[in-house]
Amino acid sequence: MNYVIGIDIGGTHFRVGLFDQDGGRLLVSEDATLRSGGRDWMLQQVRERSRVLTERADYTVKACGVSFGGPVDLGRQQVSSIHAPGWASFPLAKWVRENLNLECCLDNDANAGGLGEYRYGAGRGSHSMVYVTVSTGIGSGLICDGKIFRGKDNLAGEIGHIPVSDSGGVCSCGGRGCLETFCSGTAIARRGQDWASRRPEQVSRIVELSGGRAGKITAKSVIQAAAEGNMAASQILRESARWLARALLIIIRVVNPDRIVLGGGVAQAGGVLLDPVREFLEELGSPSIGYTTEIVLSELGIYSPLYGAAAMALDLIGAAPAGADS
Amino acid sequence: MNYVIGIDIGGTHFRVGLFDQDGGRLLVSEDATLRSGGRDWMLQQVRERSRVLTERADYTVKACGVSFGGPVDLGRQQVSSIHAPGWASFPLAKWVRENLNLECCLDNDANAGGLGEYRYGAGRGSHSMVYVTVSTGIGSGLICDGKIFRGKDNLAGEIGHIPVSDSGGVCSCGGRGCLETFCSGTAIARRGQDWASRRPEQVSRIVELSGGRAGKITAKSVIQAAAEGNMAASQILRESARWLARALLIIIRVVNPDRIVLGGGVAQAGGVLLDPVREFLEELGSPSIGYTTEIVLSELGIYSPLYGAAAMALDLIGAAPAGADS
Repeated sequence: MNYVIGIDIGGTHFRVGLFDQDGGRLLVSEDATLRSGGRDWMLQQVRERSRVLTERADYTVKACGVSFGGPVDLGRQQVSSIHAPGWASFPLAKWVRENLNLECCLDNDANAGGLGEYRYGAGRGSHSMVYVTVSTGIGSGLICDGKIFRGKDNLAGEIGHIPVSDSGGVCSCGGRGCLETFCSGTAIARRGQDWASRRPEQVSRIVELSGGRAGKITAKSVIQAAAEGNMAASQILRESARWLARALLIIIRVVNPDRIVLGGGVAQAGGVLLDPVREFLEELGSPSIGYTTEIVLSELGIYSPLYGAAAMALDLIGAAPAGADS
Repeated sequence: MNYVIGIDIGGTHFRVGLFDQDGGRLLVSEDATLRSGGRDWMLQQVRERSRVLTERADYTVKACGVSFGGPVDLGRQQVSSIHAPGWASFPLAKWVRENLNLECCLDNDANAGGLGEYRYGAGRGSHSMVYVTVSTGIGSGLICDGKIFRGKDNLAGEIGHIPVSDSGGVCSCGGRGCLETFCSGTAIARRGQDWASRRPEQVSRIVELSGGRAGKITAKSVIQAAAEGNMAASQILRESARWLARALLIIIRVVNPDRIVLGGGVAQAGGVLLDPVREFLEELGSPSIGYTTEIVLSELGIYSPLYGAAAMALDLIGAAPAGADS
């Protein structure tokens, strides 16, 4: 039996997991990301937690896969994020090799999440699949005929930055009218805050769930309030669902995959998001161009990228993948 | 040496071609489609012209590929178009086998055009390529790692029906806000006609090129007038280019191909369309998400689907493809 380590480094959380060669998750060590700690703090956490997991493993750990929550230069196996301080051009795979003493493969979280769901989650059994992650930002990972499809610049699936409107604010990418500005977790939080400043009486429950501070409203508190039946919160999610449905129809028209798997923190909302997404898809679609692409929620939830990181590690050592590929 | 027949059946023109096994085009027999003639007239034309070409061939014709300008049921190898009278559910590949006595493969014109350009035209040497055909309607064919990527329902690349606006008229597909309603040949012609009814003095040259009848303005006459420097015509093309650029950026974000090849009748406009497309792409794009996808015009022009049909026939008989695959 071979074991591998999967690492998922994100802007809000990070996770280190020990997996067996069938993709079985044995142990996970996770925590909130200390933003102020920067790169060095994160690397210290990763090193220490990997050491602990490796020591507790019954079999030898053979390789490591890393999912990074931001742009990655695949060829150079380094982070190319310019938004996360200290990470720009950092050769993360090389660092793992030198510090954890393991062969390593690095990719972004959308690709890793896609691979994770394809092999061990809601994508099992599909031939082509798109994993859409709705979180702080929005991204997607494409699986075509069982492999990650990366495109020329490793930018395939960058759906957060498709232009969906002439109006809309400036996006973090510097563009205008990007999908991300309309239906990401950030957009949901901002809409909740806007609402609080205009009609505070309608969003008191959301504010309460945000520790009583309207300025601290997050997508999570909006989602929870919607799940409890709060009308304003449901309206906010419907608005995001409307834009998300448009993006999903674009994916269906362009890629027409077997399955679209919705993951990321916002997708944890479940039915309060998925139901209106389906409704708007129905409304937007054409009566004459029928499609059979399924829209499902991720099975691995917030762990999709971690499973994908493990799958990347298993591919490195040539361990036969279980699940969809068999 | 093996020869094959390629057939391209379109709403305005049809073509029958004789090709050698390197994809060399030896003879072409083509004409305008007689709409009133319906399916039977077209089949009669195809049969007769194929017979003539076969008789003139120095080597045995071994197979036939057919490109159809409308939806195709790939599994059943039959036309699934509901817009072209008489063609619905017609088993075209079977008809070719029985009437031309040749093994046959059928696909839609977007996929065929994509394969043609990939193997013999502007897509040579690319790994992933999207062929975008702007004609009466708008479609695209995706090539991933050297193969047509069809999607679950053979609908991959249906970019004419991506939702790009909440406004906009009803599309032929029954949907609303489809790309096709904004920048197809039909949309260009309609915009020319609108202009003629409001500011006839500005489009007199377009009307002249349309036989003097404002109601007969076509995309072709608008393009010709634009090439001559007519301001109104250039404005109309710019408007189409603006929407087309948005669609191309969506393709770049989702698929990030090596190359996008612009084909179809409207793309014959060349620089008067491509220059503003590039300009709007620049404007829409993000300063931080750089991509290296090239945008080029088709090399085979209106013959892309015919070459693709020949390539499909060559694949049927296992003839080694020349060009990109070698």
